[in-house]
Amino acid sequence: MKNQKSTQKKIKISIEPIGRRILLEEPTNGLDAILDAGIGIKSVCAGKGTCGKCRILVMDKDRKPPNDQEMKKLSSDEISHGVRLACQQVFDRDLKIYIPASSLSEEQKLQVEGEEIKFEIDPLVNKFHLKLKRASLDDLGSDLDRVKNALKSGYDISIELIDIEVLKLMPLIIRNNSWDITVTIKDSEIINVEAGDKTASSYGIAIDLGTTKIAILLVNLISGETIDSKGIMNPQISFGEDVMSRLNFSLQDQDNLEKIKNIAIGRISEAINKLCSKNNISSSEILEMTLVGNTAMHHLFLGLPVKQLALSPFVPITSSPIEIKARDIGIELAPGAYIYMPPPIAGFVGSDHLAMILGTRIDNKKGNYLGIDIGTNTEIALVSGGKITSVSTASGPAFEGAHIKHGMRAAPGAIEKVLIDQNTFTAEIQTINDKTPIGICGSGILDGVAELLRTGLIDKRGKFNKESKYLCKDSKGQLKFVLGLLSNNNKNSDKDWKTRKQENLKTNIGDTASVAIDKQCYENDISIDQKDIVEIQLAKGAMRTGIEILLENAGISFNKIDGIIIAGAFGSYIDPKNVVNIGMFPKVNLEKISQVGNAAGVGARMMLLSRIERKRSEKIAKDIAYLELTVFPSFTDHFIASMQFPEPEDII
Amino acid sequence: MKNQKSTQKKIKISIEPIGRRILLEEPTNGLDAILDAGIGIKSVCAGKGTCGKCRILVMDKDRKPPNDQEMKKLSSDEISHGVRLACQQVFDRDLKIYIPASSLSEEQKLQVEGEEIKFEIDPLVNKFHLKLKRASLDDLGSDLDRVKNALKSGYDISIELIDIEVLKLMPLIIRNNSWDITVTIKDSEIINVEAGDKTASSYGIAIDLGTTKIAILLVNLISGETIDSKGIMNPQISFGEDVMSRLNFSLQDQDNLEKIKNIAIGRISEAINKLCSKNNISSSEILEMTLVGNTAMHHLFLGLPVKQLALSPFVPITSSPIEIKARDIGIELAPGAYIYMPPPIAGFVGSDHLAMILGTRIDNKKGNYLGIDIGTNTEIALVSGGKITSVSTASGPAFEGAHIKHGMRAAPGAIEKVLIDQNTFTAEIQTINDKTPIGICGSGILDGVAELLRTGLIDKRGKFNKESKYLCKDSKGQLKFVLGLLSNNNKNSDKDWKTRKQENLKTNIGDTASVAIDKQCYENDISIDQKDIVEIQLAKGAMRTGIEILLENAGISFNKIDGIIIAGAFGSYIDPKNVVNIGMFPKVNLEKISQVGNAAGVGARMMLLSRIERKRSEKIAKDIAYLELTVFPSFTDHFIASMQFPEPEDII
Repeated sequence: MKNQKSTQKKIKISIEPIGRRILLEEPTNGLDAILDAGIGIKSVCAGKGTCGKCRILVMDKDRKPPNDQEMKKLSSDEISHGVRLACQQVFDRDLKIYIPASSLSEEQKLQVEGEEIKFEIDPLVNKFHLKLKRASLDDLGSDLDRVKNALKSGYDISIELIDIEVLKLMPLIIRNNSWDITVTIKDSEIINVEAGDKTASSYGIAIDLGTTKIAILLVNLISGETIDSKGIMNPQISFGEDVMSRLNFSLQDQDNLEKIKNIAIGRISEAINKLCSKNNISSSEILEMTLVGNTAMHHLFLGLPVKQLALSPFVPITSSPIEIKARDIGIELAPGAYIYMPPPIAGFVGSDHLAMILGTRIDNKKGNYLGIDIGTNTEIALVSGGKITSVSTASGPAFEGAHIKHGMRAAPGAIEKVLIDQNTFTAEIQTINDKTPIGICGSGILDGVAELLRTGLIDKRGKFNKESKYLCKDSKGQLKFVLGLLSNNNKNSDKDWKTRKQENLKTNIGDTASVAIDKQCYENDISIDQKDIVEIQLAKGAMRTGIEILLENAGISFNKIDGIIIAGAFGSYIDPKNVVNIGMFPKVNLEKISQVGNAAGVGARMMLLSRIERKRSEKIAKDIAYLELTVFPSFTDHFIASMQFPEPEDII
Repeated sequence: MKNQKSTQKKIKISIEPIGRRILLEEPTNGLDAILDAGIGIKSVCAGKGTCGKCRILVMDKDRKPPNDQEMKKLSSDEISHGVRLACQQVFDRDLKIYIPASSLSEEQKLQVEGEEIKFEIDPLVNKFHLKLKRASLDDLGSDLDRVKNALKSGYDISIELIDIEVLKLMPLIIRNNSWDITVTIKDSEIINVEAGDKTASSYGIAIDLGTTKIAILLVNLISGETIDSKGIMNPQISFGEDVMSRLNFSLQDQDNLEKIKNIAIGRISEAINKLCSKNNISSSEILEMTLVGNTAMHHLFLGLPVKQLALSPFVPITSSPIEIKARDIGIELAPGAYIYMPPPIAGFVGSDHLAMILGTRIDNKKGNYLGIDIGTNTEIALVSGGKITSVSTASGPAFEGAHIKHGMRAAPGAIEKVLIDQNTFTAEIQTINDKTPIGICGSGILDGVAELLRTGLIDKRGKFNKESKYLCKDSKGQLKFVLGLLSNNNKNSDKDWKTRKQENLKTNIGDTASVAIDKQCYENDISIDQKDIVEIQLAKGAMRTGIEILLENAGISFNKIDGIIIAGAFGSYIDPKNVVNIGMFPKVNLEKISQVGNAAGVGARMMLLSRIERKRSEKIAKDIAYLELTVFPSFTDHFIASMQFPEPEDII
């Protein structure tokens, strides 16, 4: 019976934005399937279809018409865009669904901040309080001339331009407030006008627009303080998980570029508004915004064509900084506010890499340093003798949980830490928010593979030790190592999970994996299989190749490296020891490794707060030498060698 | 019977944009009423309602629902905007209607060009042909970097900016044309990209946006030649004939400002497109546009609020030059094309006055010069000792034909020249396009009043000589001088009119007026009455006051004036002798007067074609001293004196 079922074609459901894939044996109610997978979706009426909380977006085009309950609870606009109620859906075919944040009972783990570094606060927008001379028949100057004169006489500032929308607002604000106003100036342009003296407050937004996550910082432009921050998923995920699939989507149809642009802009606008109102600030008080991101995100955000970015030789349209009125992009900030986007470096090295360099000050370091931002594409900078050389490696989305059988993003219930006992070969696991495990996220899979290697359950080629009794076989005879049992029904509540954990979970799971199932395990048990290990080998191999070629190109041996800076949200969760143990880097004193969090966000904030840092970033962009890995003669040799894991004696 | 009818309330129909008012004795079919008034409206089916050519816009809100014929021939959009077929309408109440240009059988007389003056052609936009290096894996620079490098190496030009829309177009144009392109640069910004070598052609548009008329010039930016030009009516007339009524309309309702802005922009866009396609140019080849106009037109064009312009002390929002992307205004030119608007001088002295000064070079003249642009507001500049002082006089719309009983704009059938025989007191008239007379336009009324004065039919206070047998009385006993008989039915075809004219029209009309009707004339006979004369006294008095105060302010006597330049379309049609004879100026040697046509249009074209002239205009704007007439102590005295006509011995 079991064998019969497992050879039947299963129903594959991809659940975005958390990146979890589930396999169903038979047609299943949508809400049940999602809950069974351990994903916290809201449901108040327990599936009756009356509360309307379990809204999902059915991404596939062959979705079915809504039923009566759905017609009642959803707007016609929602229905036409594919929104449905999970409890009214039957998952009876392969589907891709998207659970909006409003339907999720818990938020994903999205690190948005990084380590702050010191710099002088000197924003590019500044406010000036003006008391104007009232117009009369004896003094007939225009409003703008009055403002110009007051700026000149009061502050010795000459302006050349005024934003047209600000010009439209000015006469009424002047006259309704007894000729007492505050203007905001960027360079020599007036970009905002307010009533009375508003010089005590000044706000900006810094954004790190990632392929998967978007980090948004609300910044006080006077104190430099980050007032609040917010991490959201990039909604473009619904059009493709990685950069290439999004570029391809944009090329498929004339309208797709607009579509993929607008979905991100809409979501960013919404998040800015929420972040502002949470802090009692109006988004019309936001005077400037900086935005960094990889080159594809940069182009898509601006609605620039991407064909030349998707095809060899993969060149960007521009590698100059861009300043554009926020309103021209469709984001409502202060009437004349600009969005500043620092220059992309190359097709696959974006302004987020530049921001990382700025935000870590790695360019200022004496000696030899590596700066690494791990992601679907991992950009690596080598700083040596005042020169910066950068590469982009196609590390793939394995560390985002994609291409890994039980992989998922860093959402509640994801296994994020793994330790395998050298004697009992039981796995000690830690899940995000201490929830019942529902999958493995990037740091968990990295830990898992490193631990399999350390305990000899896999060898340096990544092959499972077939002799080990601590591995089990699935129905197809493939070896797996089980990390946690996935509940097949929804009975294991979080409470059960916590109890079980307290009752010495390690043994339970180890025993279960090795004994109770007689070396055969269920598909849905959370495990690592041979294919998962290969994915990790490919990912770490790509990064190691990048490092090796950077070193070879510069003629530096690895032991001359004085420090390795790992940036990025993912990079701050991983265990540096395991990074070394899987051979992402050559063996290194762990003290040389520092994890700095979202350095790109830090860089975006610096560009917002400091004229000097912004100028410096543009200088850095010009100075960076981009190295195209694939045309490097020894690329293939390096890549093959880099796939291997370290020798047992090199494991720390 | 006659008396009975004439005391009945008549139906008043205002016909725009030609500015003709007709009085109907009884409800009349719309097409008949318009044709009876001598206005050439298209009608193919002769009133059956089947050709749909006689479209009119019923401006009043209490318009009636369309009938079946109208439902068939008009779109629902047209119907909801008030479009109807004249032949299906009954004019049975006071109405304001607008006859679109497409329904008129003949165009109005709109002078758009002026006397050209010499200057160096050096436009602010320039094209550069570039052959780019093809991108490859060994040469991964961005598209924009390639363009920058080619500009630098080929032409030693550094650019800082590229228009975002141009950036969007660039990659495809580059790749579809073997990396061979032409870019257009304004200052240090790329504002257009074209395939191949397009440096041989370069086009711009110069516009003089008047309250009544809009002059549009299509200019070759390489040769400097005006390729073609077009005069259109300002469609804002439907919201108010003069500046003040339009400002008031804009203030009545939140949406009105947008409405009055958009109607002008829509019409200008349409006219640009027509002018371009007539000359086999695409409007996307227009690389820059300059626009001059009075301050109200300037503000309304930009959608700037006008409250402070409509209320004392009547100040403009800005007196700085404005450069704005054409697309942001809603006009489609080259993707990144700008519209340049030179600075307004004051609330009632606009950039058209500045353009007039530039376009006449009056500022460069040695000696004392007056520059006059006659319109609803007449701006006058006194240039003396290198100083420019300007005033605005509220001369009113009498010279546009408004406030004059039989007044109309300069459309076919308008009496434009009048000569009264000193012996027979018959009027010799000339009509525009030699059509049957249907009214009097500005130059005609000016001639008429001057001739009445010269022949002693009115005295220097403007009063009719009650003893003259060459005047007639209307039903109310008011004296009138008849210039031409208006046909009471549509029998007098143009052919009849021409025949009658050849058969010595002078005598006919004189006889008719003085004899046949026994000193009583019909309302519809084209005549000048006492009220018309007062209107002309007010208009010329306002201008004369401006001149007197300018002279008094500068301490110069009129006989020290070396020249008077009369600019403007109207100014070029008038007889300088009659201008002097009605006392608009003190008596002067006519050789000192020059009529230069649309000098504002010439100035707009110079600003388009020459970087130096544009700079010069901005300098002039700063140097002009604006004099507010109403606060000048002797204003009232001057105004009262200026209302009088000259003594008989001063008539030339």
